[in-house]
Amino acid sequence: MAKPAGRNSVETASASGVASSAQAFDRLQALVAEDLEQVNQLIQQRMVSEHAPLIPELAAHLVGAGGKRLRPILTLAAARLCGYEGAHHIRLAATVEFIHSATLLHDDVVDESALRRGQATANILWGNKPSVLVGDFLFSRSFQLMVETESLRVLEILSNASAIIAEGEVLQLSMVNKISEDDSIYMQVIRGKTAALFEAATQVGGVIAGVSPEQEAALATYGDRLGVAFQLADDALDYGGLEARIGKSIGDDFREGKATLPVIRAYQAADAEERAFWKRCIEKRDQTDDDLDHALKLIAKHGALEATLMEARDHIDAARSTLKAFPESPVRQALEDVAEFVVARAS
Amino acid sequence: MAKPAGRNSVETASASGVASSAQAFDRLQALVAEDLEQVNQLIQQRMVSEHAPLIPELAAHLVGAGGKRLRPILTLAAARLCGYEGAHHIRLAATVEFIHSATLLHDDVVDESALRRGQATANILWGNKPSVLVGDFLFSRSFQLMVETESLRVLEILSNASAIIAEGEVLQLSMVNKISEDDSIYMQVIRGKTAALFEAATQVGGVIAGVSPEQEAALATYGDRLGVAFQLADDALDYGGLEARIGKSIGDDFREGKATLPVIRAYQAADAEERAFWKRCIEKRDQTDDDLDHALKLIAKHGALEATLMEARDHIDAARSTLKAFPESPVRQALEDVAEFVVARAS
Repeated sequence: MAKPAGRNSVETASASGVASSAQAFDRLQALVAEDLEQVNQLIQQRMVSEHAPLIPELAAHLVGAGGKRLRPILTLAAARLCGYEGAHHIRLAATVEFIHSATLLHDDVVDESALRRGQATANILWGNKPSVLVGDFLFSRSFQLMVETESLRVLEILSNASAIIAEGEVLQLSMVNKISEDDSIYMQVIRGKTAALFEAATQVGGVIAGVSPEQEAALATYGDRLGVAFQLADDALDYGGLEARIGKSIGDDFREGKATLPVIRAYQAADAEERAFWKRCIEKRDQTDDDLDHALKLIAKHGALEATLMEARDHIDAARSTLKAFPESPVRQALEDVAEFVVARAS
Repeated sequence: MAKPAGRNSVETASASGVASSAQAFDRLQALVAEDLEQVNQLIQQRMVSEHAPLIPELAAHLVGAGGKRLRPILTLAAARLCGYEGAHHIRLAATVEFIHSATLLHDDVVDESALRRGQATANILWGNKPSVLVGDFLFSRSFQLMVETESLRVLEILSNASAIIAEGEVLQLSMVNKISEDDSIYMQVIRGKTAALFEAATQVGGVIAGVSPEQEAALATYGDRLGVAFQLADDALDYGGLEARIGKSIGDDFREGKATLPVIRAYQAADAEERAFWKRCIEKRDQTDDDLDHALKLIAKHGALEATLMEARDHIDAARSTLKAFPESPVRQALEDVAEFVVARAS
């Protein structure tokens, strides 16, 4: 079947990529399996609160079970890539997971989400109040853990990342119910809310190993590009990705009036009537039951998911090439391959 | 007029204390006025967000204007007391104010508060979502600031304090709609939500000055006792304190079903009928318009505000005596006198 050239590379990858890239994630995970077990134990230990039993109860729901632990695995793998032989990477991996979990708790309150990873969210089960406060607790715990590494450089990187994440979240809030042809603010939002933590997660793995400034920068860039690609794929998945997925709910961003890249690309190619549709649905949040279907048709008509995933793939290519700063090794290979994984999820 | 002996010391202090203790606060503020001006400038600088203009707008509403800046003043005064001559105390004072402001933003969301310092709260003006996220931003900013001091001991103290604050807030949430004769959990809550930050604020002022472990411990104890007294006075003020105050709204804790010390003391002395009243109002939150008046009468009948303020005064005495670890100086005198201030507000 003939397809436009621009879509070809994405869909070819799609046909062969999903299964093999899932294996790539498994291979990366297997390489750091012993360390990850220690991270999980540390997470369990530090979720405990002597005085407030509600904390581990709620935190266990989110942090304790489930989740791929992609971010902490990246920290462990980066430390391994740099030949690190100490124990601080365990603390840093747990730190990164705690920061991630804290932002998820607050995100779900802000987005009024009801489901995450197929389970009812903490804000639904316990209410918004404990979700806000336990998020604060996990965030504080993350700082305690990173302080234990006694590395001021690590503390600088992670405290900066935390501020950038919060800025990204606030910026996203300001951009709700707005749509334009300009994708620069969207890119700022995803750099903040997602890529900043990926970047810090990989960078600190190198810092504790005492790598050169060049290698530290390479790890930071790898994490940033990987994080951007991850979020682009996520935003494509919110419109179903390139193949129908069973059980995956779609259209949350659309209903919340968030103009992600698939919508921006469709809007850039839209005629006057289509623009009026997007403005009504995104800016006025005036939506009927049929509007999501129409939005999906417009996104398909203009190849906007393919365009989004091409953008993701460009970032993946950039991520992989930064790893040339390190000698070849099984970990380097697994980090290269896992880059594919984050995009293949949506392809 | 004859009064029970137990009430005497509080009320004598009340008669003469309010004006002179307000002067004590002014004297302390005057001693650190130049430093405080630098703290205010630093706060203004660091509220800025390059990408998210909503952040300084909302933060300025809370942090920029108003507030006594009691906690940062304590940090500045502690550093001065210890003869510190560097510049890190400015950063630490701003750190402490940012942590305080972040917790206020989240508190107001959790408590659904409409007013703070006589102004509409941020959650009312901008909504809960920006309040949660800007709170996260201020918390992150506080960590960036403390990292700049390059003192691992300072980072340890402040990250521990942050976790204890969050635990105190969660514990408080678990204790809503509960009442018992036991005041130990109440004391844990106020140590967490209030005293922990006072303690860290004074302690880090000594740490950056490189004081002895004994003096560091004395400063920590001073802050803790002062913070407990401050919260006890606040909780007495929520029932009007010992004298009627114009424009001060009362009964928030009662309506929210929070059994603070005035209620616990009244409950300890209650007969069966009174206990049934408290259980209905606090545990069942089944309240009529007249119930607050009746609660105030029961609190007065059992001298529960006086008992609360006596407890506060004991903590103030303990706070003042720890300062004997330092040579006499105008700052030491002002810190001794300001202890009176935090209780006199409610006397």
